[in-house]
Order: sequence, then C-alpha cells, then structure tokens
Amino acid sequence: MSLIVAKFGGTSVASPERIKNVAKRLISIKQAGNEVVAVVSAMGKTTDELMGLANAVNTNPPSRELDRLLSTGEHVSMTLLALALEAQGYPAKSFSGRQAGIETNGTHNKAKIVKVHNERILEALEEGYIPVVAGFQGIDANGDITTLGRGGSDTTAVAVAWGINAEICEIYSDVDGVYTTDPRVAPRARKLEAISYDDMLELSSSGSGVLQSRAVEFAKKWGVVIHSRSAFSDAQGTLIKEEGQMEQAVITGIAHDTSEMKVTIRHVPDAVGVAALVFSALADKAVNMDMIIQNTSLDGATDISFTCPASDLPRAREALDEVMSKIGTDKYDVDEDIAKISLVGTGMKSSPGISAKTFKTLGENNINILAISTSPIRLSVVIEASETQRAVQVLHTAFELDSDSVFEETQLSAEEIAAKMKKGR
Amino acid sequence: MSLIVAKFGGTSVASPERIKNVAKRLISIKQAGNEVVAVVSAMGKTTDELMGLANAVNTNPPSRELDRLLSTGEHVSMTLLALALEAQGYPAKSFSGRQAGIETNGTHNKAKIVKVHNERILEALEEGYIPVVAGFQGIDANGDITTLGRGGSDTTAVAVAWGINAEICEIYSDVDGVYTTDPRVAPRARKLEAISYDDMLELSSSGSGVLQSRAVEFAKKWGVVIHSRSAFSDAQGTLIKEEGQMEQAVITGIAHDTSEMKVTIRHVPDAVGVAALVFSALADKAVNMDMIIQNTSLDGATDISFTCPASDLPRAREALDEVMSKIGTDKYDVDEDIAKISLVGTGMKSSPGISAKTFKTLGENNINILAISTSPIRLSVVIEASETQRAVQVLHTAFELDSDSVFEETQLSAEEIAAKMKKGR
Repeated sequence: MSLIVAKFGGTSVASPERIKNVAKRLISIKQAGNEVVAVVSAMGKTTDELMGLANAVNTNPPSRELDRLLSTGEHVSMTLLALALEAQGYPAKSFSGRQAGIETNGTHNKAKIVKVHNERILEALEEGYIPVVAGFQGIDANGDITTLGRGGSDTTAVAVAWGINAEICEIYSDVDGVYTTDPRVAPRARKLEAISYDDMLELSSSGSGVLQSRAVEFAKKWGVVIHSRSAFSDAQGTLIKEEGQMEQAVITGIAHDTSEMKVTIRHVPDAVGVAALVFSALADKAVNMDMIIQNTSLDGATDISFTCPASDLPRAREALDEVMSKIGTDKYDVDEDIAKISLVGTGMKSSPGISAKTFKTLGENNINILAISTSPIRLSVVIEASETQRAVQVLHTAFELDSDSVFEETQLSAEEIAAKMKKGR
Repeated sequence: MSLIVAKFGGTSVASPERIKNVAKRLISIKQAGNEVVAVVSAMGKTTDELMGLANAVNTNPPSRELDRLLSTGEHVSMTLLALALEAQGYPAKSFSGRQAGIETNGTHNKAKIVKVHNERILEALEEGYIPVVAGFQGIDANGDITTLGRGGSDTTAVAVAWGINAEICEIYSDVDGVYTTDPRVAPRARKLEAISYDDMLELSSSGSGVLQSRAVEFAKKWGVVIHSRSAFSDAQGTLIKEEGQMEQAVITGIAHDTSEMKVTIRHVPDAVGVAALVFSALADKAVNMDMIIQNTSLDGATDISFTCPASDLPRAREALDEVMSKIGTDKYDVDEDIAKISLVGTGMKSSPGISAKTFKTLGENNINILAISTSPIRLSVVIEASETQRAVQVLHTAFELDSDSVFEETQLSAEEIAAKMKKGR
C-alpha cells in the first residue's frame, strides 16, 4: 500500500462532469489498495474571471484582498470534488490551505511555503476520508490567506506530499508526461520515462509548460518523487527524481519560449559605468533580464541588447526613458517576435561540441542566431519567432532525440505556439 | 460620531458597478463623521449557482462541504467591496466569518451564533480601515466554516453591531423600509417610521420579506436598533426597536404569505389518540405545521386540516402514507392555492373586536375564510390565493392603514405575488 498525492489542474476540474471523472480516478487509486490525498486548482478559467472582477472595481488591487479573492476559486473546486467523491460512496473532506496547514510567509500573491502542518490531513486519512486540498494557497502568520503565485498548485501538491511523507506526488494534466520537446511542435518528440530534477528545472524555466519550476525546485530540495501523467489515460507518464534516465543522453530535451522580447539600445557610449547605469535602472524597475548581449565597440559606441519577459515591457520602457538622456543616446528598438530555443541535459557537462553542433545545424538550415546564453547544463539561442518550429525540429533530429513514431496531433502554427506560450498560470 | 454597521444584500452587490455604488455609500457615511463596518451578502444569484454546481456532482451534498462551498460567495463580494473602497481612496480590509470572530455551533447549513469575538474588527477600525465582513457565515469549534441559513447575512449584521457595540445596524435593501403592507399589493400602503421588535417579528414570520425573523429576534434579545432602508436612495427608512410607533395603532401592518399549502385528511375516526398519531408522524418527518383545524365530528368521523410550507410537501406525503392505513382512512387532499393573511399589532392585545371586524370585512367582500389562527398580537386567516390582493386591500382600508398617497409601482398579479413569495434566502 502506498500513500499517494494526486494533483489535478484547472482543465481537469473545469466542469461538474470532469470533476466526477477526477473522483473516479481517485477512487480507482484507492481501490488499487493505496491511500490518496487530492490537490486541486480552480475550475477552468475561474482565476481569470475573478481577476476580471477585481480589475473592474480596482485597477491596482491591493494584494491581501486579491489573494483572498483568488483563493475562493480553489475553495469551490475542492468542495465540489469532495461532494463528487461522497456521491460515489467515498467519504471525503476538503481542506483549504489554512486547514491543510500550509503556512507561508506574508508575501501576498507569491508567498513562499515555510511549514506544512500535516496533522489534520493525517487524521482525515486515519478516519478513512479522502482529503481534498486546495492548491495555490496558504496562510500567513496574521491568519490572512496568501497565494503562491504561478504554478502554486503544483507546489502545494509537492509540499503536501513531503509533509505527509507520501511515496509519490502524481501531477495529472492534459499532457501525458515530459517529452524531449513539445510534440505539437515536433511530431517526433519522445516521451521520457524519467528525468532528473536539474534537467526538469532547466526545461521548465526555458518554456516547457508541463511542470512549474518552483514545484520541481521544492521536490528536489525535499526529495519528493513527481510522476507527471495524463488525467485522461492510464498510461505511465514521466518520473521526475534525483536519478534521471538510466542511460544518460547528452541532450535530455529541447524547450522553446516565445514569451520574451528583445530590446536593443543603439550607440551607447563605450565608457566605464554606462552599461551599469542602464542595467541598474532596469533592475530598479524589477525588469527580469534574461540574456544580455553587448556588441563589439565600433568608434567608441556600442549596441546593448537584452531579452526579458514581454510582460515587463512597460516597466522596461519607464527605466529606459529615464536613463536614455543621461547616457547620451535616445533610441532603442523592441523586437517581440523572437523565440528562445533551449537545449537541456545534465550530460552536456561532459560532452564538448554541443554549441558547435547547434550553430552548424541552425546555420545549415539558414536560421539566424540573434543571441546566445549558456549554463552548465543548458544552451539557449534566440532566433526569429517564425523559425521556432523548424529550429526545434532540426535540432531534435540532429541530437538524435527523434522517436520512431510520429505524434498525431495537428501541428501548430507559429502564432498558435506564441499564443500558447503566453497563456496564464 | 457614531459607530454604524451597514449591511448590503445580494442585489446591492450584484455587479462591479453596484459594488462601486455601495463603496460610495459607505464613504458618505464615513464623510458624515461616522465610523462604519460593512456586512455583505454574496453577489446576486451566486448562492443559487453554487448550489447548482453542488447538485450537479452530488444530489444530496453533505452539509460541511456545502457550507464551505456556499461561503465562497461572500468571500468574493467582501473582497471586491474592499477593493472598490481602496480604489476610491479609503483603506479597507475584508473579514471572513472566521476572521470577524463569528463563532457558531456546529449545525452546518443553519448554524447559530454563540459568540462574537470583536478584536480584529475593532483593531481595523482603530487603524483607520473600513472593515468589510462576510455575512451568512461563521466558524465552529472544529475550525470548519458554517453558514447561518436563511436570512443569515442580516443576522451577521446584527451580531457584529452587538459585538462592537454599534449605535445602529443599517440594513440596506431594494425596499426603503417597513410598510403597513406590501405596496406592490396594496398601493395605499404606508411606510412606518418605527416598529417594535415584536410586531416586526410577527410580520416577518407571517410573510413580510423585508427582514428575516432571526435577525429581528437577535436584535430584540441584545437590544440592537435596526434601520431598514433603501440602498438606492437617501430617504429615512424604518427603525426597528423596543419602543415602536409613538402613537400605537391597533394594527401595525398586514402581511401575506402564499408559500404554504393546506392538507385535509377526510373521515378520520373520532377516537382518542388518532389526531396524535397523525401529528406525531408529521413531526417525526420535521413537517412544520402552522395551523391545525379539526372540524366538528359528524357520525364518528372528522376532517383534519393543517397548513405547512409547500416545500415540506414531500415529507408530509411520506408521513401521511405511512399513517393512513393505521387510522383506517386512505384519502387526503392537498391545496397549494392558498394564502395566509396576517394582521399584526401589539395594540391588538387591548383592543377587542379585531376578529369580528376582520370576518365582517372579508364576508362583505365575499372572500371565504378557510382557516383561522391567532396569537396575542396576530390574527391570521387562510383564504384562496387568488383573493390575496383584494383581501389585503379591503383589510388595509378597514383598519385605517391607508396612506393619502398612492404607491406608483405597477400592481402585481396573484401569480407574481406567489412567485415572489416562493423565492429564496
């Protein structure tokens, strides 16, 4: 008998019908002889609708009230799931973040979990209930509700799994595991049986939407094994754990991200402290710079480029407008039609020639590289957004990741990929 | 400077636009030099929608989960109101039932308030916030959310007013006070400046929808003065307090109620213990019998009638079907097309001849009386539902309640009155 945490996202609980299916799934886990604790997100688009209401009365809503408002989404889905389980003859009890003992710091909208009090969940299990826990939320020292920000429900699931010492944390979604790349972009993508925390972290933070980085970080820190699998089939998914693949490939996967933009400042005087002035102004406005490229100086002036999330653009403009006159230039370009393609693999550390092979492959396919950045287990290149699909496919083939079978879902257009990448939580 | 509790119902907070108006109203109370605490119901039809979702996954939802689900409605409206106040420059803080210290017993779906812990509300006032409290909910000794049942938000408002020792509890709704009768039924209805708790209780429990009996009972018990007034105008409403009208009229008001039905059991043997058998069977099924009429015995058999809420009909049928064969009869009739007209007035105690005048008035107008019941300050008659409007009007005139001015809203049909009376919380 195993103790399992099973997390279901918003799509899986978007309607009463789907909630009943989730209940059936939980019951089958229990019937297989396991104990199970469910963690749920809000139904479908609920969070967006609540945000819409908040913005209709206050364009700059204070975070304490906003957290309280958003938390109601999971309160609804958790009780409905408990009701659905009861209707199918299985006693269930819902738990808000507070009741589940998810203690956080007081940073509303993106609180960090500081402690998990497991007593009530364990007690409910003891009494034969299926506990259903609200994802995405906790409670701070003041007794106020906090939310965990993007990916919060995955993080809740991992935290609960750790808190009650569960064997595994199953994260159910509309994809059936972690692929070498997005199968909708490259139909020869291969599902991974297992992947290491580090590789998963790089993939997540490079644009793979399967799991949120934060949940993976938490799982790595506390040694929680995650099983990413489909809510709509029984197929085995992908395990995320300390030891990844048995046979280590050089590249584990390829992620793409079209949610960033590139800003280029022209003719910056090539003097000491100028770049620092620009970047500290951007940092002051909390612009998350990802890559920074400074071109070789020509006649005492240089071009500085950086990439950052497109959502940071308004703040970036504020910072730049302030700093431009000070540094004696007045022009910058914004290019939103870029894509970042990232090759990820722990095996990369011991394999030279990855960059060379990447540049060669893209060059042979006439795909222009606009910027490059690397980490010990990741190589990212920025290209034009319209080349996303072709770049992913040729690199996937070049690094021998192709599967023998072809993924059957219709391929997405560049616009669809971009739209998909830009969507919410 | 006064300390005021202001309660707004679901209609007043049904949209972001209306929530902004409520915020303006609260601000004007504050600008007049008062301290104010708001209490809100859920937005518009939210509670019904949540019930619909619950029923879609479980036709017999357990009460703990249902309470948690329904409570989210007020969590949404309270945070939106707090956000709207903030947007208009007034610091505000929302409080769930738990945070507002509304402690109840554990009777889910219709919990009773056992204590009000006022610390957090008083602290928020001290710090200059407008506290916004969720109506309709509290928390039991287990830390689980409870709801207070029908009229719960009015009760919350009165409890909070008592808990923080407010000068007055203002209850805002879409009617501008308590009338001698429903102005939509009798256009010469007159708005009362004041009414005693006892008269208000009898009116509320006899079908007047302005205030819920429970809130009035609570107010009477703890001496909280209620001001029932319009959310859409500044006009003075009606005060509900210990001393009612200065000049005591014999009849304070006339209520009507079409939500009951009449059951008649034919040819019941007129033997000792037979009536007891019937009524204890009904009581076992929790059928709320209002009036009971036993006709004079003829040839050893009698007819027994009783009235009860139409919603109790399924349970009443179960009870009767069980008991019918035992008592040697097999026939009962159900008449749902009845109305109860109640004349209410503390002054009735010292004025003989009220019944005589009532019967005479109805008789002269050819309105047939099906049943009668009395209390020291109330006289109720059951008539055919189709005669509701005419009966109210002729009695209103006979007891000299008519106003000089005529209420301008279109009169309702008997069907509309019935529909109105049957609607929810």
